[in-house]
Amino acid sequence: MPIETEIADLHDADLAARLQRKIDGKTKPLGALGRIEELALRIGLILGTDTPRLAQPQLVVFAADHGLAAQGVSAYPSDVTWQMVHNFLAGGAAASVLARQHGLALTVVDCGVRHDFAPQPGLVSRKIAAGTADASQGPAMTPAQCREAVAMGRDVVRALPGNALLLGEMGIGNTSAASLLLARLCDLPLDDCVGAGTGLDASGVARKHQVLARVLALHAGAIEPLDALAAFGGFEIAAMTGAVLQAGTERRVIVVDGFISTAAVLVAHRIAPHVTQRCVFAHRSGEHGHALMLQHLEARALLDLGLRLGEGSGAALAWPLLVSACMLLAGMASFESAGVSRENSVR
Amino acid sequence: MPIETEIADLHDADLAARLQRKIDGKTKPLGALGRIEELALRIGLILGTDTPRLAQPQLVVFAADHGLAAQGVSAYPSDVTWQMVHNFLAGGAAASVLARQHGLALTVVDCGVRHDFAPQPGLVSRKIAAGTADASQGPAMTPAQCREAVAMGRDVVRALPGNALLLGEMGIGNTSAASLLLARLCDLPLDDCVGAGTGLDASGVARKHQVLARVLALHAGAIEPLDALAAFGGFEIAAMTGAVLQAGTERRVIVVDGFISTAAVLVAHRIAPHVTQRCVFAHRSGEHGHALMLQHLEARALLDLGLRLGEGSGAALAWPLLVSACMLLAGMASFESAGVSRENSVR
Repeated sequence: MPIETEIADLHDADLAARLQRKIDGKTKPLGALGRIEELALRIGLILGTDTPRLAQPQLVVFAADHGLAAQGVSAYPSDVTWQMVHNFLAGGAAASVLARQHGLALTVVDCGVRHDFAPQPGLVSRKIAAGTADASQGPAMTPAQCREAVAMGRDVVRALPGNALLLGEMGIGNTSAASLLLARLCDLPLDDCVGAGTGLDASGVARKHQVLARVLALHAGAIEPLDALAAFGGFEIAAMTGAVLQAGTERRVIVVDGFISTAAVLVAHRIAPHVTQRCVFAHRSGEHGHALMLQHLEARALLDLGLRLGEGSGAALAWPLLVSACMLLAGMASFESAGVSRENSVR
Repeated sequence: MPIETEIADLHDADLAARLQRKIDGKTKPLGALGRIEELALRIGLILGTDTPRLAQPQLVVFAADHGLAAQGVSAYPSDVTWQMVHNFLAGGAAASVLARQHGLALTVVDCGVRHDFAPQPGLVSRKIAAGTADASQGPAMTPAQCREAVAMGRDVVRALPGNALLLGEMGIGNTSAASLLLARLCDLPLDDCVGAGTGLDASGVARKHQVLARVLALHAGAIEPLDALAAFGGFEIAAMTGAVLQAGTERRVIVVDGFISTAAVLVAHRIAPHVTQRCVFAHRSGEHGHALMLQHLEARALLDLGLRLGEGSGAALAWPLLVSACMLLAGMASFESAGVSRENSVR
């Protein structure tokens, strides 16, 4: 996969200067809109224009099951994955409610849920297998499955309209996979990477840590990003990795949710470093390890609300800030057009 | 003014328990929506129901001029106050754009701008005087003007529909007044309270500090909240104080913007301590001193985006989070209704 060459450096000094001049000319003190100004600049650079407009935003929830869940690494049973897929589609999940609020098209991708779903609107069936294998016994995916899942994520995004992708996921056990990817790809002690997930208590976290330490040791040779991804899973993280690469190639704005989504960006970043120029990091999760992941990617999240739900809920909550950034750029008057005095020459 | 007795303690253990049960029954791990859950609880308690609905939100920008601006405490000339009033009404200010985005009714209140405005839609003319007096020469307001401005703020809110008030303000020089109120009412060293405002450089901040130190010394006897307010100004802060007290009395949700708005809440809180139970603090401003103000009020802001614009822009940017909190409470399925399994009994 010649992916590296497809995602170019967005650096465009002319456009950046034009955007900054436009922002600085608005009726407000220089820099007074803080990170909203940075956001406007970033969205302009991604979309390659000083009049950026976000169109047909897509919230995609990638869902799959994890063989490792059998080892008791989650507070919830694996059945919750398929039950939540129904809940997304029925409109009762947090992501469903937030998508309605903000006019986000919601698509659920079955990347490998251990359940047979009847075809229905909003569900894209692209099952790689009925859940990954148990990573404590062997690799979660075969190399072929891993490549297939990444390619599938690319396909899914390619087929969607619009210029903004909001990442979401569902998969009981997937904080374990994300923790393992963080530990391996960033070479961090497992202690710093493992958290409570959906709500383990202290002894649950200790047990999860034990299991993950074994998994990490079992796959000591899985150093390269796609090897680590295959070793630890899951199908939804691999598909998200492909989705991120595809959206990056197409210069869509990628709104990254929490710990699991950022793990997919971590893998994609190793394959195509410039992809993070297309990313807006929506929030800093309450999940232990997310802050380290963001730090590794030199990313600052917009929100810090102690969210740890996934589903793209954090991405959806941050979405109106992106819309604001574009609307302010388009709709605010300049000092000249509004006849407002500039700063005193002597401060 | 027997204001104290009008703002009751919102404490309602039954309602709080009902709200919490409802939140905990939603299809998500316990607490996984973090501060959005706290927000849902707070809005429910303010509106006195476990099915809160925000209705007809009002963004009110209180505008006035400050005599102290003649001492060179701001990077901008006083004329910017009236010019920005025109900009708000013409739709070109940040607050105008954000109000349009979120469906907020925008009202500008002329509390004492040094300019004659023709009557126009969206402008409420309640001028106390053409700007406050210069606080470095004597009190910014007479005691009668201060009472009048507070009462006017109450009137303005009383006349508005809806159950949510977003506070905004405009007034060249008003970070000085807010800094003085912070220093006096919280008994803090002036150094900790003075910042760059709209964008003073280091020598500008030093000059501002010198001026404010003189003002603080001149009004050493103005200890009581309304005395301090009269001494330092301005009309817009006094009107906002009244607006906060009125909204509190009526159990509206009060969305507090940045440094200046929080200064008004500081004064209102001294008059009626329970009023802060009705407040949602939208953001932590980039203005030095705001963090201390929030700390004094035991408040945590929702956003931290380095905003320092005022106008209610931060309140408007945070607004969709309040809407989300209510929509999630109303629209998310429960574990039972969605047929989703709860946590494993053994974690």
